[in-house]
Amino acid sequence: MDTHDLGEFWLIQRLRDKLPAADPRLVVGPGDDAAVWQNGDAYTLATTDTLVAGVHFLPERVAWRDVGWKALAVNVSDIAAMGGTPSFALVTLCLPEDIAVEAIDELYDGLRECAEAYGVTIAGGDIVSSPVFAITIALNGEADAANGGGPAILRRGAARAGDVIAVTGPIGGSAGGLRALLDRRNDGIARELIARHMRPWPRLDAGRAAVDAGIRCAIDISDGLVQDLGHICDASGVGAEVRVDALPFDEALLRAYPDDATTLAASGGEDYELVLVAPEAAIKDAEERLGSTLPIIGRIVEGAGVVVLDAAGNHIDLPKAGWDHLAQAHQP
Amino acid sequence: MDTHDLGEFWLIQRLRDKLPAADPRLVVGPGDDAAVWQNGDAYTLATTDTLVAGVHFLPERVAWRDVGWKALAVNVSDIAAMGGTPSFALVTLCLPEDIAVEAIDELYDGLRECAEAYGVTIAGGDIVSSPVFAITIALNGEADAANGGGPAILRRGAARAGDVIAVTGPIGGSAGGLRALLDRRNDGIARELIARHMRPWPRLDAGRAAVDAGIRCAIDISDGLVQDLGHICDASGVGAEVRVDALPFDEALLRAYPDDATTLAASGGEDYELVLVAPEAAIKDAEERLGSTLPIIGRIVEGAGVVVLDAAGNHIDLPKAGWDHLAQAHQP
Repeated sequence: MDTHDLGEFWLIQRLRDKLPAADPRLVVGPGDDAAVWQNGDAYTLATTDTLVAGVHFLPERVAWRDVGWKALAVNVSDIAAMGGTPSFALVTLCLPEDIAVEAIDELYDGLRECAEAYGVTIAGGDIVSSPVFAITIALNGEADAANGGGPAILRRGAARAGDVIAVTGPIGGSAGGLRALLDRRNDGIARELIARHMRPWPRLDAGRAAVDAGIRCAIDISDGLVQDLGHICDASGVGAEVRVDALPFDEALLRAYPDDATTLAASGGEDYELVLVAPEAAIKDAEERLGSTLPIIGRIVEGAGVVVLDAAGNHIDLPKAGWDHLAQAHQP
Repeated sequence: MDTHDLGEFWLIQRLRDKLPAADPRLVVGPGDDAAVWQNGDAYTLATTDTLVAGVHFLPERVAWRDVGWKALAVNVSDIAAMGGTPSFALVTLCLPEDIAVEAIDELYDGLRECAEAYGVTIAGGDIVSSPVFAITIALNGEADAANGGGPAILRRGAARAGDVIAVTGPIGGSAGGLRALLDRRNDGIARELIARHMRPWPRLDAGRAAVDAGIRCAIDISDGLVQDLGHICDASGVGAEVRVDALPFDEALLRAYPDDATTLAASGGEDYELVLVAPEAAIKDAEERLGSTLPIIGRIVEGAGVVVLDAAGNHIDLPKAGWDHLAQAHQP
């Protein structure tokens, strides 16, 4: 049997079962946005993400500078989704023989811009030969201890029936940008969407405001809103209802792809906004700390799985459930 | 210009120059075996290494279990070369569509064996699609503070003229194992050498004994003794003389490839023994702590570069200076 028949999430579970007993300092192991372990009086966070040419981006259609930005940004987003602060990164470059030095220079320019924007120090890494270009970043971060003990972080498994679901900003723009790249569109609105896709701005500010407001459940939108919310439901043992009419659609998406906006916003992925799950009062508290609105898009219910509802409360079936990097191999 | 024309070390230097100002907690940035940053009263170490199928190993000739072992072991060796203790690892798998689940199961078995042998907890990771198999591990570790302040670690840049050069064990066995794989040898001695190549045992014990003995300069033998010693010379602003007749040759290498033993031991790489550089008294102290001998193979001198001498003190030119992963692209 091939691994791609099983899919990413099945394989992760299978491999997780093979791991030896963990160091007792480990607080969060595989299966959340980042690992967390105790580190004296505080906590260390650690995450890693990879971009492979032709799988996660189209090298002939995007700027290397943007690839560099995105490679680090997707890792910063994982730290944001845990409510932490990023610190030190290791960068691994897998380089084919024919890649130009100028491409790598531009890649590093984008990497540096993102590192400066988010206060990340690139502390080391590795460079190896490979038939295909890939960049892997491992990023450490930090979280404080909570008043009641344990780390003050955002987990996937902390959703409770009765909680509301909020998002930290417009969604669907990144999926619109990917569509624009595939459509080879180059008008102004397409470029705006492509920037959303290649230059995401992780929501460190929102993650920290959420932690400070006492929120304890979040995920970043990488696989797609519905699928990522499904991860929260699986980890928490609850269900979720999402109202399509409450979704904060990306404005450029609505103008460029009005007919597909719902699907792209609900299932497209890579927005790198956060989904926050908490009692409504905590969401209001976080809004005040953040100084911006956190639209409520649904609620957590007893049961399992994510249900998408239209304005009239009827179920909607979306054509695509999300983004499984293995099941959709080689789709950019 | 292609990156492969420049070579790995030139490219690392070029990219290092592009990095933004570092967090003041960073003690060791790019250019040593691992990064080091301050972490309260102690220090965090971090390193990452990648194995790419067809570049760093031949998937059709080696066991996946051994690939899993080696992928973690090479990272543990970087922590050993800093005198630290490994702690938590993140594992990234780049998987082609046609890879069998059984292969990944075996890979994880080897990974688990190495994690258990060295007390490493696998805390998370990432799985992505890729045209070529690769495994990247990012490993964190720990070091104590030294009595005089700063971390108690082993650096590349701490060699001084008058120091002696010692190694922690037999060398050349791994290069002999690679030769045996390329020769498709399958006799008993070949299997012994292949085990040296695919199942290296990093010298955490020796790294820690060295730190406790007050030694402050080391590197692990990954690129090859002469090249790795050259990294120490470059970082320290010194030269080195190595006596071939003092090298502790791997016994199986001498039996399997007697004519090429000198070249393979001096330049072959991937032994993952440590090179220690210190005053002779500190080496003796480390020997006592370790309970085994640390053969002295040469000395540090004023100047630059590594000179290899025969028993009569004459210079020897070795056919291959070392192992540059970019200049030797696609060589396993």
